[in-house]
Amino acid sequence: MLSVFILASAAALFGFTADESVAQKSIEQRFDADLKTEDLDAWLKRLSSEPNQVGAPHNQANAEFVRDQLKSWGWDAQIEEFYPLYPTLKHHTLELVGPNKFVAALKEPPVDGDATSTRTDGMGPYNVYGADGDVTGDLVYVNYGMPNDYKDLERRGVDVKGKIVIARYGGGWRGLKPKLAQTHGAIGCIIYSDPQQDGYGAGDVYPKGGTRPAEGVQRGSVADMPIYSGDPLTPGVGATRNAKRLKIADAPALMKIPVIPISYGDAQPLLAALGGPVAPAGWRGALPITYHVGPGPAKVHLEVTSDWGQKTLYDVIARIPGSQSPDQWIVRGNHRDGWVFGAWDPLSGHVDMMAEAKAIGALLKTGWRPKRTLIYASWDGEEAGLLGSTEWAETHADELRKKAVLYINSDLNTRGFLGAAGSHSLQRLVNDVSQSVKDPETGVTAGARLRAKMLVDGHEKGASERDRKDAKIAAAGGDLPIGALGSGSDFTPFLQHLGIASLAIEFGGEAEQGGVYHSNYDSYDHYVRFGDPGFVYGISEAQTVGHTVLRVADANVLPFQFGSFADTLDGYVTELHELADHKRKDADELAKLLDQNDYKLADDPRRPLLAPEREPEVPYLDFAALDNALVRLKKSAKAYDELYLRLQAGTVRLSAERNRQLDELLRGMESTLTHPHGLPEREWYKHLIYEPGLYTGYGVKTVPGVREAIEQNHWDEANQYIGLTAAALAAYCDRLDRATAVLGEGL
Amino acid sequence: MLSVFILASAAALFGFTADESVAQKSIEQRFDADLKTEDLDAWLKRLSSEPNQVGAPHNQANAEFVRDQLKSWGWDAQIEEFYPLYPTLKHHTLELVGPNKFVAALKEPPVDGDATSTRTDGMGPYNVYGADGDVTGDLVYVNYGMPNDYKDLERRGVDVKGKIVIARYGGGWRGLKPKLAQTHGAIGCIIYSDPQQDGYGAGDVYPKGGTRPAEGVQRGSVADMPIYSGDPLTPGVGATRNAKRLKIADAPALMKIPVIPISYGDAQPLLAALGGPVAPAGWRGALPITYHVGPGPAKVHLEVTSDWGQKTLYDVIARIPGSQSPDQWIVRGNHRDGWVFGAWDPLSGHVDMMAEAKAIGALLKTGWRPKRTLIYASWDGEEAGLLGSTEWAETHADELRKKAVLYINSDLNTRGFLGAAGSHSLQRLVNDVSQSVKDPETGVTAGARLRAKMLVDGHEKGASERDRKDAKIAAAGGDLPIGALGSGSDFTPFLQHLGIASLAIEFGGEAEQGGVYHSNYDSYDHYVRFGDPGFVYGISEAQTVGHTVLRVADANVLPFQFGSFADTLDGYVTELHELADHKRKDADELAKLLDQNDYKLADDPRRPLLAPEREPEVPYLDFAALDNALVRLKKSAKAYDELYLRLQAGTVRLSAERNRQLDELLRGMESTLTHPHGLPEREWYKHLIYEPGLYTGYGVKTVPGVREAIEQNHWDEANQYIGLTAAALAAYCDRLDRATAVLGEGL
Repeated sequence: MLSVFILASAAALFGFTADESVAQKSIEQRFDADLKTEDLDAWLKRLSSEPNQVGAPHNQANAEFVRDQLKSWGWDAQIEEFYPLYPTLKHHTLELVGPNKFVAALKEPPVDGDATSTRTDGMGPYNVYGADGDVTGDLVYVNYGMPNDYKDLERRGVDVKGKIVIARYGGGWRGLKPKLAQTHGAIGCIIYSDPQQDGYGAGDVYPKGGTRPAEGVQRGSVADMPIYSGDPLTPGVGATRNAKRLKIADAPALMKIPVIPISYGDAQPLLAALGGPVAPAGWRGALPITYHVGPGPAKVHLEVTSDWGQKTLYDVIARIPGSQSPDQWIVRGNHRDGWVFGAWDPLSGHVDMMAEAKAIGALLKTGWRPKRTLIYASWDGEEAGLLGSTEWAETHADELRKKAVLYINSDLNTRGFLGAAGSHSLQRLVNDVSQSVKDPETGVTAGARLRAKMLVDGHEKGASERDRKDAKIAAAGGDLPIGALGSGSDFTPFLQHLGIASLAIEFGGEAEQGGVYHSNYDSYDHYVRFGDPGFVYGISEAQTVGHTVLRVADANVLPFQFGSFADTLDGYVTELHELADHKRKDADELAKLLDQNDYKLADDPRRPLLAPEREPEVPYLDFAALDNALVRLKKSAKAYDELYLRLQAGTVRLSAERNRQLDELLRGMESTLTHPHGLPEREWYKHLIYEPGLYTGYGVKTVPGVREAIEQNHWDEANQYIGLTAAALAAYCDRLDRATAVLGEGL
Repeated sequence: MLSVFILASAAALFGFTADESVAQKSIEQRFDADLKTEDLDAWLKRLSSEPNQVGAPHNQANAEFVRDQLKSWGWDAQIEEFYPLYPTLKHHTLELVGPNKFVAALKEPPVDGDATSTRTDGMGPYNVYGADGDVTGDLVYVNYGMPNDYKDLERRGVDVKGKIVIARYGGGWRGLKPKLAQTHGAIGCIIYSDPQQDGYGAGDVYPKGGTRPAEGVQRGSVADMPIYSGDPLTPGVGATRNAKRLKIADAPALMKIPVIPISYGDAQPLLAALGGPVAPAGWRGALPITYHVGPGPAKVHLEVTSDWGQKTLYDVIARIPGSQSPDQWIVRGNHRDGWVFGAWDPLSGHVDMMAEAKAIGALLKTGWRPKRTLIYASWDGEEAGLLGSTEWAETHADELRKKAVLYINSDLNTRGFLGAAGSHSLQRLVNDVSQSVKDPETGVTAGARLRAKMLVDGHEKGASERDRKDAKIAAAGGDLPIGALGSGSDFTPFLQHLGIASLAIEFGGEAEQGGVYHSNYDSYDHYVRFGDPGFVYGISEAQTVGHTVLRVADANVLPFQFGSFADTLDGYVTELHELADHKRKDADELAKLLDQNDYKLADDPRRPLLAPEREPEVPYLDFAALDNALVRLKKSAKAYDELYLRLQAGTVRLSAERNRQLDELLRGMESTLTHPHGLPEREWYKHLIYEPGLYTGYGVKTVPGVREAIEQNHWDEANQYIGLTAAALAAYCDRLDRATAVLGEGL
């Protein structure tokens, strides 16, 4: 065992020669030595001691505290303000007015053993950017309220026009629920947390266990973020004091109907009062009732009134200028605002970022300087719609496009497994870093534990196709696959609006998650029992992100590898072919069944189900351009990666000038994957490989222009985006081939 | 459309020439004209008016009524008695004794609008053939209590030794729950109905809807029927007055631990009191609690005392002797005993059988006589373990082996789709009959509606592999597949013990089933609201079974077709290859994961899960004999089927002597598929193609000697049963080839 250890220890880091690796590892050891669980604990306790939503005094106080800490550690830190539209709740009511009466409590009472839950100055549960309104109507249960749910309703002859819908959380992004409800003519939208996924169905409820108690409510934004993030009034530009703003009535990201989030305690009487068809099997949650669809006889009255004013955001931005390449920026961020206390979300990740910043500060004191510039950011207003990060990214867009080499994000961090997602040109780097971080529970590296997990998950009966594919890759022994990024946290403006290579790195998967998400119970007391007792995974997180930052900061040539990207894209393109083929077969089969009247014959007249709508015929698409682009990408990637490994062997060095040229080419690689006009219906999103789905919200759609066009039967658009994506890949390859040429001349 | 109709109408029936078909159709029309919904209604109301379990006075009265009716319709009807061991409940108690107190009600109170539910002379809820006992112990929740559940428990470090288990109904046959519990060392077994499948989770509860109310209990037998059915004291012989009997202590089918069935109302306080690990996701039902596994701290006291006496069974057996082949018997049965009133189970099917018998009686009065002998049987004691049918079949085994050409069973019958299962040599006949019966809801034939249903089900997202395969067959336009028979009703002694070709034919799938199964609420009032309002599917059932009986009775040559059997067996053998290959791959993968310590590394130490046990290596099996037998069977079947179609063309006729020879060969075909020593560990079950699984109970295992040996890692046994099954198929083919020769000579 000893020899293996020495070998591993002696191995060169990716991006570093053997000699450089010795020095870099020594820096990482000093960095690690300065990470303290006591710091994480003390900061989390302090930061989460009072409500922290946008506009709360403690959120501003936290910004000042964080800025001052960063300054004290040697960073150039300051607060940068923005001024978005930020409605706050004035009044809301929800009541069942027939056939029986019930008034929803809309309150989260104190919980034994949870110190902060007794505070009464927290924010009442509401969905920010829902419309004001006072509506009364028949209730309809719409399951998750996603597109397929409306198709199911239609087959049951149920229409939501003029009705109020009640949807459960899950199945897709929260904001899509009111958006699709209003699209279908509903006049109001109630969103509740079903105990199946988010209460006693998932585990013991708080305070006995960690899951959501009957009164717990999930707050959250319902802005139409899949079209743009940030201040709804300033799409594409920073919400500075004098920015040009849309009128509220013209802001496309704002909902047109009132929306309210409620607990399952409040939801049960409403759902129990529904009549109409029994809900389909997949729609039933864990409440002890027979779920019905409606409409009515349950009739509800919903009223929401907000104060539609501006609030001030306090982003804390801290810098250490690079010693050799000050114009190459590594940006690292985590948001600081929470819904109420926010101990899990976001402060658990935020304190890890602070530990990194402190340890980097300590390195500075030893005389170390990063070659490239480091920027650490404590974002405000993420919860309402990535406000702080988006407004900063939009304000500094030109400079970021020129200088940023990497954005690294985290959000909540808990016990469990390393979870990394992002630009696949960074997959090699992340895998390499994962071998330098120990998992605190098992003593093996975070990477080794993740590989074991992928292998075990892929072997489970009923494993998903994704899990099985990942296990196959893990079994082959090479790099573990990292995920692709959709949305849901502050990487979005950097990756998807500006085209900056990005990563999200968080530990998780073993905590009792979900239980207090966006509720009054997301508290310090809850986190230290269920999130990461002893903060040991907080240290792992700070190590993983910290080492990544330090290696990108210090490598002579930026540590990208392109074979992983090419292989991953190969998988995506295969999926697109399969998607089109599957849809074609499915549409043909369906047409035959409809022609034969089979749905009518198979139907149960006592529980009638209309036949599904005919799907349009699926033409064969012009995939050739994309297929050819992929072939070229594989070749270009292989050529570059081989030369880069020779550089790493350390027998030759690049001249400073060639190094600079090469870095400049590499820095801009990701931006070639964007298109200035972005995606159909949402120009703000410009990345042609990774985007949040228009109808998933957080969930990623890879090669989105093509994939969503196929999903939505937009064949011309699919062909158009095959061409655009192929062209972007050609630009990517052109740039990569130039980098290869520079590298080849230098070796 | 008209021409098609004329064509279809003019088409010959399978087994009949065009001329014979005209006559046969005319008989069927007269038969159909005598089926009356008013009869079904009146009989059901009368038969289900009082409790009908074995030993109840009304069960005997019903036997006499049925006998007298049959006599009045022209049948030679009599009651045949048997005397099985039949424990009846004297006393039972179930209480939670710690950490809190709760006494289970074990009562099914009256329900509004259900007239018979007010009666108090019904049978209290119990599991017949559970042991007497008075035990106290810690409780463990074992999900369905099936083999995989015990593996899951083991991985959680939970042992049931010395404990009392609580299992929910479902996942496998009821009797396996206490059997596996006692095998694992448990001292008592509680079985409850979870509302997920069997209560508000499935639909509105009775009386608002049809599903099980909180107090409803599922009674039922827990004899170890997968080893033999019938009286536990007389395996293999009839329980006549003077039969040799086992001692109760020596009867292998009897449970050794006390067992009690309870409602979900009674189960909830017990489950809520459990601690220990949170139950795995798939174990969670619809009660509004977090399901835990235990053991304890819930401690329960369970006491069951029964009267272990004999009871008398009253089988009603009615005959019409065949005019040409009196020694060829067509046996048709449905049981008559119920758990309490039994309106659904079994009387809904029983009254349909009575309608057939009455209509056949009416045909007799017109001078018609069946060529072959008809025997109609109203079985007693099915609920306790197929007692009436098994004891009759065992008593008359020699004669049945010589004379029976077919057994047709039904049990409960409800709204919906034609469901047929049985010997695949009868698949053609059933398909042909299904074209002569109209579906009352759609007006198309029962066969056409079933085809539409199979096509639609196979097209659904998430359709099972089985559904997809069936849809493929249905889309090809040929005969629809019929199912294979496991157990759960009275066909078992005929098909699986004696090797008589059998069918089970019932309509169903659109009623709110399950809700009152084996409870006090299985009543007339419930059935006419939810089972088959207007008894229209009762008429369809009587038509389908009646036409089948009449065609087998009247065809010159028995209407078998062997290509369907060969094709079906081909599918089974393919499955066996895949099963072995899949197990081999799975065992190899698992071994690698265990060698690499991946389970340990992937484990969550706060919710520990032990690694699964290593699976033995799977050798390559000697499949060649079976593969070759299948090749021969396909050829032999094709040769016979082609000649039989020529016979049907009507250009030639067989001599009476050749017809007799041929019939005799065909009659005995199915019995060549049996082996005198039966299956491993259960000699009583002798069929080598269709059997109830040793660990499924009702669910079928096809080619069971081979399949179960592979599943249980008994490689030598697998090879042995490959040989035995191949030999049986060779005997089948020898006989079939002789039949082909007789037919060939005759044409």
